[in-house]
Amino acid sequence: MDQQRVVIIGAVALGPKVACRLKRLRPDFQVTMVDQGEYISYGGCGIPYYISGDLSDIKELMSTSFHMERTPEFFEKAKDVRVMTRTRALAVDRESKTVKVHHLDNGQEEDLPYDKLVLATGSHPRRLTVPGGDLPQVLRVANLNDALVVREQISQGQVGKAVIIGAGAVGLEMAEALSDLWGVETTLVEIAPQVLPGVLDPGLARMVLTNLEGHEITVHLQETVKEIRAGRGDYALEVVTAGRTLDADLVITALGVAPNSQLARDSGLLAGPSGGVVVNQRLQTSDPDIYAGGDCIENIHLLTGKRVHFPSGSLANRQGRVIGTNLAGGAATFPGIVGSFTLKTFDMAVAATGLSLTAARREGLDAISALVIQADRAHFYPGQDLMYLDLVVEKKTRRLLGVQGLGANGDALVGRINSIAALLPRRATLEDLSNLEVAYAPPFAAAMDIVNAVANTAENILDGYNRTTDVAEFEKCFLTDQPEDTICLDVRGAQNAAPYVDLFGERWLNIPQETLKDRFAEIPADKRLFVVCNSGVRSYEALRQLETAGLCNAVNLQGGVAALKKSGLLAGGEEEKK
Amino acid sequence: MDQQRVVIIGAVALGPKVACRLKRLRPDFQVTMVDQGEYISYGGCGIPYYISGDLSDIKELMSTSFHMERTPEFFEKAKDVRVMTRTRALAVDRESKTVKVHHLDNGQEEDLPYDKLVLATGSHPRRLTVPGGDLPQVLRVANLNDALVVREQISQGQVGKAVIIGAGAVGLEMAEALSDLWGVETTLVEIAPQVLPGVLDPGLARMVLTNLEGHEITVHLQETVKEIRAGRGDYALEVVTAGRTLDADLVITALGVAPNSQLARDSGLLAGPSGGVVVNQRLQTSDPDIYAGGDCIENIHLLTGKRVHFPSGSLANRQGRVIGTNLAGGAATFPGIVGSFTLKTFDMAVAATGLSLTAARREGLDAISALVIQADRAHFYPGQDLMYLDLVVEKKTRRLLGVQGLGANGDALVGRINSIAALLPRRATLEDLSNLEVAYAPPFAAAMDIVNAVANTAENILDGYNRTTDVAEFEKCFLTDQPEDTICLDVRGAQNAAPYVDLFGERWLNIPQETLKDRFAEIPADKRLFVVCNSGVRSYEALRQLETAGLCNAVNLQGGVAALKKSGLLAGGEEEKK
Repeated sequence: MDQQRVVIIGAVALGPKVACRLKRLRPDFQVTMVDQGEYISYGGCGIPYYISGDLSDIKELMSTSFHMERTPEFFEKAKDVRVMTRTRALAVDRESKTVKVHHLDNGQEEDLPYDKLVLATGSHPRRLTVPGGDLPQVLRVANLNDALVVREQISQGQVGKAVIIGAGAVGLEMAEALSDLWGVETTLVEIAPQVLPGVLDPGLARMVLTNLEGHEITVHLQETVKEIRAGRGDYALEVVTAGRTLDADLVITALGVAPNSQLARDSGLLAGPSGGVVVNQRLQTSDPDIYAGGDCIENIHLLTGKRVHFPSGSLANRQGRVIGTNLAGGAATFPGIVGSFTLKTFDMAVAATGLSLTAARREGLDAISALVIQADRAHFYPGQDLMYLDLVVEKKTRRLLGVQGLGANGDALVGRINSIAALLPRRATLEDLSNLEVAYAPPFAAAMDIVNAVANTAENILDGYNRTTDVAEFEKCFLTDQPEDTICLDVRGAQNAAPYVDLFGERWLNIPQETLKDRFAEIPADKRLFVVCNSGVRSYEALRQLETAGLCNAVNLQGGVAALKKSGLLAGGEEEKK
Repeated sequence: MDQQRVVIIGAVALGPKVACRLKRLRPDFQVTMVDQGEYISYGGCGIPYYISGDLSDIKELMSTSFHMERTPEFFEKAKDVRVMTRTRALAVDRESKTVKVHHLDNGQEEDLPYDKLVLATGSHPRRLTVPGGDLPQVLRVANLNDALVVREQISQGQVGKAVIIGAGAVGLEMAEALSDLWGVETTLVEIAPQVLPGVLDPGLARMVLTNLEGHEITVHLQETVKEIRAGRGDYALEVVTAGRTLDADLVITALGVAPNSQLARDSGLLAGPSGGVVVNQRLQTSDPDIYAGGDCIENIHLLTGKRVHFPSGSLANRQGRVIGTNLAGGAATFPGIVGSFTLKTFDMAVAATGLSLTAARREGLDAISALVIQADRAHFYPGQDLMYLDLVVEKKTRRLLGVQGLGANGDALVGRINSIAALLPRRATLEDLSNLEVAYAPPFAAAMDIVNAVANTAENILDGYNRTTDVAEFEKCFLTDQPEDTICLDVRGAQNAAPYVDLFGERWLNIPQETLKDRFAEIPADKRLFVVCNSGVRSYEALRQLETAGLCNAVNLQGGVAALKKSGLLAGGEEEKK
């Protein structure tokens, strides 16, 4: 292939990766990156850690791992890539193969000729379209300029109270950034009935909510912001929802992002329902001389076959390499995504991959979920902590659809999620996960590790051995409605059960599992039983015994008392691990 | 299926799992476990942590996660499983379907009838067959009794010096256990030319060795023990090798384990070349009424198709469930293993899965390996540390064959290894790993995570873009032979390079990569070049530039200065991360 001129529009994540990969393979190619911004090649995902103060200098987000700033000069000198910043791409003329750009600093326009073009235009944060949504103290933290403004305000002590609108990943990261180190009184407002909507199912989302509240974040769910207006008292702003008025010195909107595809669509390229540019597996748009990747495209979801918008800095990097290879004459492919996700929120890590139960059912899949709570290493090894994994499986095929989890040890959690992410595109089944050969040594895993255990639990549910219920059902049927015919059978030791026996009286029956087979007579045969232990394992054992004894009106509470506590429904002393 | 009598021989790992699973599915079955030992259902892998003092009470290794001791009485009461300890199985009569057992306490024999039999006989540590190998102070730490003896001796201050024979996983764990907390002067003697032979390739093994030596463990490689004899001075024993005589109060042999299959073979069941019992995917032996699993069997290695002995407490648990399901009338399968492994050795975690390069080549596979050293999270995120991953790939098919790694953060390392372990049985290729969708957030991963990066590096090597060499070659050709026509081109900043320029003079040329394209003239065209940076990434970039400039006599040192230092070959100040 002859030398070519390649123009890349966008120089934050995908663009630089394309440029560098391509130049390593084809040093003779002329590569030009244009970006309307001042800063390029930065780690936008690191913004919350700059604002929190974990990073002292914003330049760390623009530096290589060997501490060189990724300036336009760096790209010219180290990579032989031409960079034009503060240069906006106005139009693509696919006939003449030129991009018309506008130099923001001098107002001039220029036509850049290309043989191949790459759209790396990224995404933009959704705007809050209510009165006052465009007030100057309402920020979006979408780029380094925003980040500088927010951190300056906070560090100068100008922010006593903040309201964050949107309890997705960025909203949660910002809540921690503002409150944890700077002590800003922070309120999250979310339109959905849970935090992390679209990512987590309601059960785990509730545990995240409880954790946020435990860190003094106020969270208002199912509330729509009606207006933002100037404050009348000590605070600059008032955020008005249907239910209340919140004072704030600073309002941050975190309503998710939408693909920047206007330029592509204006050029006649195909875009999908999400607004993202449509590409094939080689990441070519509907014009084979124009590639696109990263936040501006739609990806095939490998579990549903549908096109989705899934913005991710990591995806942008992987796709950038694919485009770079293909521009150089290679034949790399990017088949699609499974939607892996992770987030640190205070002392809790959250991670997920694939479909949530909600998403699976919305897709018309007949699915169930299985929750397992288990130590993240050998239960006898010092420093172990509980990990929560919720696995989603298609009933009929037993195909793995997704998993969500949380725990204190993020590395341990993310490792488990990733091992399942590796299985998801391959139509793996429960049996594959049950036999998944995770490495074992007591400091890092249990002999029956939680990834195997959660598959086993799901299998037991599907095979009818483990009849389960969840925290939401328990709350409704045991805590709220309190029908007389429903009692709790606590199969742990007397010491663990005592506080709840005190609290609930006859409605909380304690029979340790190892004594159960001699004590069936104590269980009222006419009552519905919630069987509970610390995590759901001993209660499963008890459930099997009850059924053998003909007591079939029992269900096992998945996650047991650990899940109830994590959800903020029960208080009480430190429990044993299972 | 009618009620059946199931006898399980062995009650440590696999046996109890079979029994419990089976009883949950078929409470009507009569299940009897026999074991010649006194203790049952214990976590043998935890012994080093009991000896080290990380666990205060050995009962923690015999307890459930909810702190109930797994005694025979516990199994009877909580699980309805009959347990006979100190009961040795002498013979299986497959005609009459009985097991003859010998009660060690009263000397009586008994015939136990079975409908289905399970062999969970485990493995035994290999004996040191030299004079003195059976002296009382020569221990094997294979069971809880050994563990009690060792810890008692150490805690009473009776052990000043110890010699451990065998530098496999158990040898290394014991070395840490003895030296780290108790301050025992510990020496490892290994017959192979490296530590962890059969697990790691020589490159990473050398880094583990350097780390051991940094923690004051003396290691003698390629030394055969000739004799152990009573000491003549202050120490109880002398360990005599070909090269030296070592004093010791305590000698521990850690020579690996061999399957306990005598009973099976005496019963006419098929065993393989490793001595392990042969089973099918349902884990049935050559007699379909007899199942076997855990350390006493051979497994199919899914990458070679061959039968291997791969002892693992985790495998035993997974296989136990498969057997329990099948005994209950189910149809579970265990297709085989990939050989996942992990180990903590002082402040370093080691993990691997699949084939090492050595093993792959021994199997006749035409394979290469690629080493990547990279931060285990976003390079700007506080607390990140370097992780080392070495990927093994078949050249022609680009099929993933295995990966080995090490790093300070074991959870992060094991998570990466497991995600690759999930791919290995599925004939996944480099492109699958390059696109593997690991979850991304700066606290837990880099935007281009090391699992993706190592696939990309391997691809660059296979495609001829990255011509690499390794630490061993560098040592031989640059440090030892010192030929005049070989120089090092250090493409890092001047500050990083300065100590080596001082040390090596003209043989260590420093030209930072970002200035390289203007300074080709300074590079002697007639010399062979080792291009180095901190990790191998900038030097790859430089290599591409050199080649474009017609300087083709250069190779990139994989892992760069970080690898040299980790291998104990270069000292020097703290380096930047890449």
